[in-house]
Amino acid sequence: MTETPPTGSAAIIGVDAMGTDAGPAALVKGAALARRDGIAAEIIFFGDEAVLRPLIDAERNLAGARIEHCEAAVAMTDKPMHVLRRGRDTSMWKSIQAQKEGRVHAVVSGGNTGALMAVSRMQLGMIPGIDRPAVTALWPTPRGRVVVLDVGANVEATEHELVRFAIMGEAFFRALTGVKKPTVGLLNVGAEELKGHELIRTAARVIREADPDMAFTGFVEGNDISLGAVDVVVTDGFTGNIALKSAEGAARLVGGWIKDALTGSLPAKIGALFMMGELARLKRRIDPSNVNGGVFLGVNGVVVKSHGSADEKGVAAAIGMASSLVGKGFRKQVAQTVALVFERAGKTLEAAE
Amino acid sequence: MTETPPTGSAAIIGVDAMGTDAGPAALVKGAALARRDGIAAEIIFFGDEAVLRPLIDAERNLAGARIEHCEAAVAMTDKPMHVLRRGRDTSMWKSIQAQKEGRVHAVVSGGNTGALMAVSRMQLGMIPGIDRPAVTALWPTPRGRVVVLDVGANVEATEHELVRFAIMGEAFFRALTGVKKPTVGLLNVGAEELKGHELIRTAARVIREADPDMAFTGFVEGNDISLGAVDVVVTDGFTGNIALKSAEGAARLVGGWIKDALTGSLPAKIGALFMMGELARLKRRIDPSNVNGGVFLGVNGVVVKSHGSADEKGVAAAIGMASSLVGKGFRKQVAQTVALVFERAGKTLEAAE
Repeated sequence: MTETPPTGSAAIIGVDAMGTDAGPAALVKGAALARRDGIAAEIIFFGDEAVLRPLIDAERNLAGARIEHCEAAVAMTDKPMHVLRRGRDTSMWKSIQAQKEGRVHAVVSGGNTGALMAVSRMQLGMIPGIDRPAVTALWPTPRGRVVVLDVGANVEATEHELVRFAIMGEAFFRALTGVKKPTVGLLNVGAEELKGHELIRTAARVIREADPDMAFTGFVEGNDISLGAVDVVVTDGFTGNIALKSAEGAARLVGGWIKDALTGSLPAKIGALFMMGELARLKRRIDPSNVNGGVFLGVNGVVVKSHGSADEKGVAAAIGMASSLVGKGFRKQVAQTVALVFERAGKTLEAAE
Repeated sequence: MTETPPTGSAAIIGVDAMGTDAGPAALVKGAALARRDGIAAEIIFFGDEAVLRPLIDAERNLAGARIEHCEAAVAMTDKPMHVLRRGRDTSMWKSIQAQKEGRVHAVVSGGNTGALMAVSRMQLGMIPGIDRPAVTALWPTPRGRVVVLDVGANVEATEHELVRFAIMGEAFFRALTGVKKPTVGLLNVGAEELKGHELIRTAARVIREADPDMAFTGFVEGNDISLGAVDVVVTDGFTGNIALKSAEGAARLVGGWIKDALTGSLPAKIGALFMMGELARLKRRIDPSNVNGGVFLGVNGVVVKSHGSADEKGVAAAIGMASSLVGKGFRKQVAQTVALVFERAGKTLEAAE
């Protein structure tokens, strides 16, 4: 597998353009938007050429973009096992295969998450020391973005897995932002008499012992996500999914109230005219497209899952993230961090499990 | 224990006025606000008379309010077991004891949640058929309020407990709002390939079998809380706590962005003047005081936990809820609903566990 593009060459991003809820047009337009916004990456689309060609030709910013024609697409309802057995002619399979073969450096897909995970694991393999991948999510905070993981790959997580999520999450945030010492917290409940599951307490202890260099702050609570109390929030896939969806719902609720306020009376409508500039900025801040793009950590490659109903702005954000991760040698960084922590703390990690 | 006030008499609410983060003044002012807002209940304060008397005398709406002097207060850091053993002279213990003795019909406390739960269980006992209490939380939706439970009493919950939370939560929502058939959902994750823990799937099956009359809609996701997709969202205390705190954090984040928008430029500031009426309404909607007050379901009494740092509006909301629950015979309603479901479905419930 090609680690990174040769010096001086642009990254090549494979876009699995089929099998999303929003349809291939959102992916093509998103790629065009990402190019317009200045990402240097070259893009190869995987999918039905008859569908994709006219969409691509309509985009000035995609001049020269290649298509690898694929006969089939993974459906949202396909079982991962079915795709592994019979999905080798799908755009998803072929895009990941292209990464394995070094023809692309990263893949962005808006398709079936479970299938994408299974295909990525099978073809790219896992980083040594990691058994189960985790999916990241980004969320806005007053001072930037927070990474939450896992948000979907593992409904339950052992102490063992939470520790590895923390190590990978820290490395991911560093690669994404350049921050040298990202702060990391374990999601928990705060009441003194409860203090979470036994396994979260164990995980906290093991993280401290295994990676004393990590800026691990201990437990954080649900509200700390949006507060940006730490850079990386670690939890199991069930809790992470519910925390982020609860936050999304609340942001949408307040967004709806803002709309009510802006249109609730004639004076309010007049006032809104004065505020147009600020309201546009507010709208951009609330736009979920900003935080589209979940990365599969632990997989030995760069795979970014775009939301199946992401619009072109969301797709552009996911492609931008993939391009940035490739540019920063993210896959290698994560693998090296994991190897380093394991080398130093292998016995601690094993003894504690 | 006196079920409800004799016909024609007002409910009597005991307010445990000590041991909160915000101090006794917030509780006294909150009670005054609740009286001003028209609750019919009589109020008895439990706490240090020397502290409470001047606070109460300063409130016109509290004329005639009684104090039961208590020598001690439960600290936020006290272990529940310690309070059970040595806390009989505390305002918390004495307020719950007054409910046991029928001198008050409900207790509102802003104190140590674990201790309040332990003291309530010990003195009031549990509803037959319920082993472990659950704590409710309210959350705003576009069409009113949703109840989420459990949000703190049980870090883990078995199928057995989730089923009982659903039954009690439905009865609680009915008593609170008068809605005859509240809709109930189990909090889960949505991706097809995951679909949550085995125990949540089992709980869903048992609820359907045990209580076919319930308007049980199956699984809901985190974003459904703020959407108001159902009236009652059932989950374990760990997940419920994290879901609601994540939602609170997100609402506060967007609230901060709104403030930025309103003050971000001179035209925006002018626009804000036009919108003053609507912005005041928006502020009221976002105010967390609206949803203050967690009820201990399963305890054989009416105990409302006010947030330890709730301001007077929050306290007034909690006292209003207590008064309303007493007026509607809530304790009896929950016990009857539980008894009815158990009588009809006892075998189903036991067989499934």
